[in-house]
Amino acid sequence: MRRLIGIMKKNYTVDFPDIFKNLKRGPQIITLKDMALISAYTGISSGQKIVDAGSGSGFLAIYLGNLVKPDGKVISYEIRKDFAEIAKQNVKKAGLEKVVRIKNKDVSKGIEEKNVDVITLDLPEPWKVVKNAKKSLKKGGWIVSYVPNIEQVKKMVEECEKQRIKHVHTIESFIREIIVRKKGTRPENTGIIHTGYISFFRRN
Amino acid sequence: MRRLIGIMKKNYTVDFPDIFKNLKRGPQIITLKDMALISAYTGISSGQKIVDAGSGSGFLAIYLGNLVKPDGKVISYEIRKDFAEIAKQNVKKAGLEKVVRIKNKDVSKGIEEKNVDVITLDLPEPWKVVKNAKKSLKKGGWIVSYVPNIEQVKKMVEECEKQRIKHVHTIESFIREIIVRKKGTRPENTGIIHTGYISFFRRN
Amino acid sequence: MRRLIGIMKKNYTVDFPDIFKNLKRGPQIITLKDMALISAYTGISSGQKIVDAGSGSGFLAIYLGNLVKPDGKVISYEIRKDFAEIAKQNVKKAGLEKVVRIKNKDVSKGIEEKNVDVITLDLPEPWKVVKNAKKSLKKGGWIVSYVPNIEQVKKMVEECEKQRIKHVHTIESFIREIIVRKKGTRPENTGIIHTGYISFFRRN
Amino acid sequence: MRRLIGIMKKNYTVDFPDIFKNLKRGPQIITLKDMALISAYTGISSGQKIVDAGSGSGFLAIYLGNLVKPDGKVISYEIRKDFAEIAKQNVKKAGLEKVVRIKNKDVSKGIEEKNVDVITLDLPEPWKVVKNAKKSLKKGGWIVSYVPNIEQVKKMVEECEKQRIKHVHTIESFIREIIVRKKGTRPENTGIIHTGYISFFRRN
Repeated sequence: MRRLIGIMKKNYTVDFPDIFKNLKRGPQIITLKDMALISAYTGISSGQKIVDAGSGSGFLAIYLGNLVKPDGKVISYEIRKDFAEIAKQNVKKAGLEKVVRIKNKDVSKGIEEKNVDVITLDLPEPWKVVKNAKKSLKKGGWIVSYVPNIEQVKKMVEECEKQRIKHVHTIESFIREIIVRKKGTRPENTGIIHTGYISFFRRN
Repeated sequence: MRRLIGIMKKNYTVDFPDIFKNLKRGPQIITLKDMALISAYTGISSGQKIVDAGSGSGFLAIYLGNLVKPDGKVISYEIRKDFAEIAKQNVKKAGLEKVVRIKNKDVSKGIEEKNVDVITLDLPEPWKVVKNAKKSLKKGGWIVSYVPNIEQVKKMVEECEKQRIKHVHTIESFIREIIVRKKGTRPENTGIIHTGYISFFRRN
Repeated sequence: MRRLIGIMKKNYTVDFPDIFKNLKRGPQIITLKDMALISAYTGISSGQKIVDAGSGSGFLAIYLGNLVKPDGKVISYEIRKDFAEIAKQNVKKAGLEKVVRIKNKDVSKGIEEKNVDVITLDLPEPWKVVKNAKKSLKKGGWIVSYVPNIEQVKKMVEECEKQRIKHVHTIESFIREIIVRKKGTRPENTGIIHTGYISFFRRN
Repeated sequence: MRRLIGIMKKNYTVDFPDIFKNLKRGPQIITLKDMALISAYTGISSGQKIVDAGSGSGFLAIYLGNLVKPDGKVISYEIRKDFAEIAKQNVKKAGLEKVVRIKNKDVSKGIEEKNVDVITLDLPEPWKVVKNAKKSLKKGGWIVSYVPNIEQVKKMVEECEKQRIKHVHTIESFIREIIVRKKGTRPENTGIIHTGYISFFRRN
């Protein structure tokens, strides 16, 4: 950890991928490719206010924290105390304590923040949060859900339509690493073929 | 354009995806999914100094400009005057004139910037830039190449290894939109199945 | 057509792909990759008795007819008279009149054949046929459904489990053509990204 | 083995997929999806004469044997004695001794068969066989190569063009299994993402 904070102080910002690799992995974490798509398709950048739930190990919160710094905020809700603890430690390791706040609270009970740019939901039942999420969201703001099963996508789309939040699109993505060697170039043989469906919704 | 600058002034940062959609499309542009992966895998964020070549319509430069703002810089080289002109107009439309600078110069003739965090190369022959790119790069900094053909990947990997810049990995990605409708849920039937290979290299 | 029948008589069996290309395309047809997987995963070969529904333009029936010939049979049900007519003409063009029989009947009203090896269902509501299909099927025989939407897969799996026909697996497949040229090798840029889900069921 | 031969005698042809699963797996074997595409795109069926090399464990030879039976032939060359032995045992297990012949010979030294419909090459250097393959091939006959690396595809295409054998197309394929469960439907999480490139060539 000391090494990592050292890195941050020296402003070796190019080392964020290294910092990321060294975070503690507790509950199942979202992949970098999916975090990349979530932030790119909503245009997350410096200065924004993001609400995230659930924190899990805090990876998505930290990834987004790195994008909204120095003046933005990520507030991440986590219902389980043990996960919230891991997430907090990871935020510290990443040197993002001033940007990312982990709240050990049940997000479905209410979102305290207002005027939020983007709300990211990596939860088994994201539809339970939609009604409250809408109230916290800035006009034009986004809700993004990330779920493994197609039934979850459908329920989320239904609830958002009911709450008059527009379903912009739902995507899934694949990545293949290409092995480049003297003896031959080819994609790697085995790997991840499904992580989750990312759905984008938007408040008018 | 007026509308867009208006949007920027009002600080509707959630509207970056809208701004993006309204930029002028000249030469073939890089897809959002690929820009997402380039920035996420190198950890590009607020405050960094990025060199980009060639600008094309300026999409990647603008995408990265939105990430490094308010204090970072993107310097984007474009050899063709007509493309540089389109890129400049797009930078203005996006309200990023203070962050993104388009240079109408041949990047293979030299890179003037020093202490650069990431150099992105969307060029037919990125290997011609490696030697100069290395000198401009911060220790730990990244070179990213984006090319359609596998032969280009191989040449780039060879040149970087010759210049002792580590080949971290090369990836390709796919995205499918999922159609969610009452009458049935399924991926869209046709779409893009290949854009380009993204290769990541790193200076020790 | 004369040319094609000529081809068949001369026993130019290597020309089946050519014959196939020259068939009349009426209603939406199943892709070759999906026909390939259907036959390979059920082991369809010379001498088998296959029931198929609906015929559409007869492509799957003809593809399977070419595999079960000379002694096997494909009986293909088609409810629409106009489609049945196109299918019959295509069977003739392919020179498979002795192997493939198109029946202008509603398969959901009953399947007359017994001791069938494989039943292939390219229908919007394949679950309506399961009960009858089971009775016609040889012990160890297969039912294969081919549908575009995930909800159809679920309904079919439910009905088969209710009828005690084992769900072996459901697959989807993608194919990319690789462009090999002096100036560079790469996958084609756009193409088909979703055709249908193929589900395999088996009678004990 | 006895059980399997029993199965064949009883004409339980629907059980070929079971027989297949029970074959001995020696050297790396070609996947069912790739065998499916090879046979479907060349129209392999009852009565044809096929040359195959190298046999490996004999899976492709046996798969093709099941398609060309009862009157067709598959002649499969294997340079290694130990592999040829495994392949022969597998042919016996599959009950296809009258259809598939394993030859313990180096295919690059010459192909004895004439008037061949399709030649399948699952070899590290398929281009070494092209000249001889052409002489053995029927007019309109196919050569199919199956290789893991893109460089091999390029060499094979070059050699075939030099020998005036048309490159029809090269494909790669992916398959995903869809998990259908009460608690949620989704593609399986990990799996095979690359097997090989299949190239199709044709003699005029």
